Amino acid sequence: MTGRGPVRALLPHRDAVERLGGAPDGVVIDTFSGRGELPAGAAEVEFWVPAIHAGGEALDVLDRLPALRVVQTLTAGVEALVDRIPAGVTLCDARGVHDSSTAEWVLAVLLAHYRELPRFVLAQHAGRWDAGATDELADKTVLIVGYGSIGAAIEARLQPFGVELLRVARRSRPEAGVADVAALPELLPRANAVVLILPLTAATRGLVDADFLARMRTGALLVNAGRGPSVVTDALLAELTSGRLRAALDVTDPEPLPVGHPLWSAPGLLLTPHVAGAVGGVLPRGYRLVRAQLERYVASEPLANVVTEGY
Amino acid sequence: MTGRGPVRALLPHRDAVERLGGAPDGVVIDTFSGRGELPAGAAEVEFWVPAIHAGGEALDVLDRLPALRVVQTLTAGVEALVDRIPAGVTLCDARGVHDSSTAEWVLAVLLAHYRELPRFVLAQHAGRWDAGATDELADKTVLIVGYGSIGAAIEARLQPFGVELLRVARRSRPEAGVADVAALPELLPRANAVVLILPLTAATRGLVDADFLARMRTGALLVNAGRGPSVVTDALLAELTSGRLRAALDVTDPEPLPVGHPLWSAPGLLLTPHVAGAVGGVLPRGYRLVRAQLERYVASEPLANVVTEGY
Repeated sequence: MTGRGPVRALLPHRDAVERLGGAPDGVVIDTFSGRGELPAGAAEVEFWVPAIHAGGEALDVLDRLPALRVVQTLTAGVEALVDRIPAGVTLCDARGVHDSSTAEWVLAVLLAHYRELPRFVLAQHAGRWDAGATDELADKTVLIVGYGSIGAAIEARLQPFGVELLRVARRSRPEAGVADVAALPELLPRANAVVLILPLTAATRGLVDADFLARMRTGALLVNAGRGPSVVTDALLAELTSGRLRAALDVTDPEPLPVGHPLWSAPGLLLTPHVAGAVGGVLPRGYRLVRAQLERYVASEPLANVVTEGY
Repeated sequence: MTGRGPVRALLPHRDAVERLGGAPDGVVIDTFSGRGELPAGAAEVEFWVPAIHAGGEALDVLDRLPALRVVQTLTAGVEALVDRIPAGVTLCDARGVHDSSTAEWVLAVLLAHYRELPRFVLAQHAGRWDAGATDELADKTVLIVGYGSIGAAIEARLQPFGVELLRVARRSRPEAGVADVAALPELLPRANAVVLILPLTAATRGLVDADFLARMRTGALLVNAGRGPSVVTDALLAELTSGRLRAALDVTDPEPLPVGHPLWSAPGLLLTPHVAGAVGGVLPRGYRLVRAQLERYVASEPLANVVTEGY
């Protein structure tokens, strides 16, 4: 921090300074919601945090920040940004911020599925006492595909339920029991539930196709807490309609799901509207990450959560 | 086992011997579903396991088993039996057998509540993409009232979610962080969720009355996985109708809940039809307990899970 002025950062909420617990030393905070005029100091902004639901329009701001060095998202997925980042700019994601909320959602839908909560909600809605034993989560085998920090958070919460865990990630780590995708044909038939926590990349788009689904055992549950286009919707619809598989989806392709789409009434499906990561605690956790990253940047320390290195 | 013949036991399922993995050494198994004629050897039966849903009628069998020494239930609650046990007969419950399934149900409804699964199930049913952030289980304070083996199973499953736990039982155990019921007025206002795992006794009937509920904080969740009559239904209905409290009930008073009862349409209520303990794995676990108890009885060793000692 020798020889230059304070770092100028652009954050998405009007009350960003308060959310940060005050601006870190050596940082000046401007705010920009993604719409309207950029603040006066935009030409000196080095560190930008886009709004959590920033669309294509908000990203045009990239062309108007000539001093930009870092883009820090509040989301775990960065597929809308990764190909738009200018040369020399580092992209950091919000890995970790959504671990707890997404892991909660996965546990919620696994338990709702095995303990048949949708059946009981609809029976209650109809005023019907629909007693009868259900299946249980205990003793099930759960395969996590895309095992990273969210996968580890899911595993921690599954562990006391007495389940067996199988793990697949892009790179195998045999010492941690993590296999690579080449092991899927052997692992899929062993799982009672397959949990997808995949980013959307060229390698994951359409990964869960008819062949992938056909290797899942009859009666198994597909859980998607990643991105909709990882699953070939028509292939899943065929397996749901035949009753061979069941599913819990927080994300769909297309998304939002249009009125009248056949997924709405597919049997054996629990559908939520992309809320797995959407809880009140996400912004406080996100701002704790932003503050820590700003402090690292000002101190010229390596940033965390780097997706693509720009400098 | 000197000087007398084999122990005769009466079990509720036709395939009881198979479920036991074969009769234990020194035991002869008869079966009786609770209806119709008792088997020929009934006069020598020393060890009886009533059917899991044995009603008053099935209990009349107690008067026709003159050699009876042990009643071993497959249920955790024994309120239908405890006052009917003849002098000299020991009553044992199925403590532990339902720990896993009941703890799963409690986690299922806590997560369904905070992550609003009933709202999403009904929106899906209506074909509506009802997006929006929810609350979360993380950082909540959960008070378990009736902390025993099921309470410990709930605590183990809650621990990775980052919640604070408060514990109340009949007897305080300060070294284990367990307070007695005298602490309820001080603990109730601190809890975001109050989980009832109470047996039905003179002390617990009506324990959760208007005064108990009034001490719960606004917006808190009452979860009942014990017995319906622990809660004063009208008092809970008033708190639900005003929107001050929310609830998840597996048990009700009356039960089953009659058609048209106001609980069916009470706002903020998730209702399931007494299924918290009812999972496929309960009978295998129950029969493992029965086998272990028969082996202890034949070997004249102390029985486990004794509720009232008869000899």
